[in-house]
Amino acid sequence: MGTLVLLRHGESVWNAEGLFTGWVDVDLSAKGEEEARRGGELLVGADLRPDIVHTSVLRRAIRTAEIALNAADLHWLPVKRSWRLNERHYGALQGKNKAQTREEYGEEQFMTWRRSFDTPPPPIADDDQWSQAGERRYAELPPELMPRTECLADVVDRMLPYWYDSVVPDLAAGRTVLLAAHGNSLRALVKHLDGIDDATISGLNIPTGIPLRYELNDDFTPRKKGGEYLDPEAAKDAIEAVKNQGKK
Amino acid sequence: MGTLVLLRHGESVWNAEGLFTGWVDVDLSAKGEEEARRGGELLVGADLRPDIVHTSVLRRAIRTAEIALNAADLHWLPVKRSWRLNERHYGALQGKNKAQTREEYGEEQFMTWRRSFDTPPPPIADDDQWSQAGERRYAELPPELMPRTECLADVVDRMLPYWYDSVVPDLAAGRTVLLAAHGNSLRALVKHLDGIDDATISGLNIPTGIPLRYELNDDFTPRKKGGEYLDPEAAKDAIEAVKNQGKK
Repeated sequence: MGTLVLLRHGESVWNAEGLFTGWVDVDLSAKGEEEARRGGELLVGADLRPDIVHTSVLRRAIRTAEIALNAADLHWLPVKRSWRLNERHYGALQGKNKAQTREEYGEEQFMTWRRSFDTPPPPIADDDQWSQAGERRYAELPPELMPRTECLADVVDRMLPYWYDSVVPDLAAGRTVLLAAHGNSLRALVKHLDGIDDATISGLNIPTGIPLRYELNDDFTPRKKGGEYLDPEAAKDAIEAVKNQGKK
Repeated sequence: MGTLVLLRHGESVWNAEGLFTGWVDVDLSAKGEEEARRGGELLVGADLRPDIVHTSVLRRAIRTAEIALNAADLHWLPVKRSWRLNERHYGALQGKNKAQTREEYGEEQFMTWRRSFDTPPPPIADDDQWSQAGERRYAELPPELMPRTECLADVVDRMLPYWYDSVVPDLAAGRTVLLAAHGNSLRALVKHLDGIDDATISGLNIPTGIPLRYELNDDFTPRKKGGEYLDPEAAKDAIEAVKNQGKK
């Protein structure tokens, strides 16, 4: 019943600078653009042709999809976007340097904010320069829906309605769906798909720019847990690199 | 009742080389990318913020929208695409040099193919290298719907259902709609909007990369015939340049 292809955006300018990004709408770095092109080439190489693409409303995921699909001659695909696929909102940490934060608050607090399933960072103030409150693209989110911070559990809760209402119907129609999103919105989805428990998910990293294919059963569970990266070797190396982020 | 913004794609590689393009899916030239960026800046300068974008399924219109919207910080807009917004299918002329065609067939035949309302060029063979028959993006078009050549009258006929069924509902909801398309699909729409007769439309050229704004009445007719270019001076110059295409 359909094929799901997950694609984490390539390196952003703030990834490169080691800053917490969350909902701040930074662009891809030149390396990130190259990763996106390579992602498109991997689709072609695997003879994997999505019928539709879903993205977050953040530039780095949108442009990753655009560049990858253009490279795969699939620029003409229908596209849907939703804030529900956005990266985890990083609260008051948005715009802060990861290494400095680790130094200031200590390893334990740092890793709790980065990896705890249910402990969010402190909320961001609406008048913080890195707050998204009042942005036009979120005009249809009533105040109670607009995040000020999120833990991964919050991302699961706000992402799943989009999975059920917008992605599953495409898969049910037999479509191959490309979902271009972010480290934590994809971790939330993979947690759901693979039935990963709250403790184990903290150890899961998804590399950037390498399409991850899930063939699905009729009940939308994966035929093979964990799916298959289109470039397994590169995926392994990249997962190691993500683990080391924020280390000096 | 809503605002309509028309944007003709920037210069394509084949525009630059003086070839008939039609449905051949060529990319923007570097100049075309720059025109698209400038189009986005003109939107910002005019404080004109579309709520949704409609494009053809051809790369040069899709990328024009992507580049313009990215420049205007509107990359996150919802987007819809349709083959009904495609450029006029140029039949057997696709891939041919404009100046050579003019020389080979004479000025009268050349201008008939370019500008006659109801005389299409000869149809393209399905096995021609520049035919789109069998392309996956047109898989939902039954054979009787898939063009082998088109005159402007044909473009009006196949474009209008999309105008009525997909664009008008957005306008009726009070949205500002950006429509990124092609010289002839936009001429077809402008003919309809401004009530231009079959003879007069042949003299109308729409410049590339300069947004054309129409404020609409409750019956979806323009408040002002012809609309308003966001850069009227540049539009005037560009219209002259289009007129001279194919001249030696």
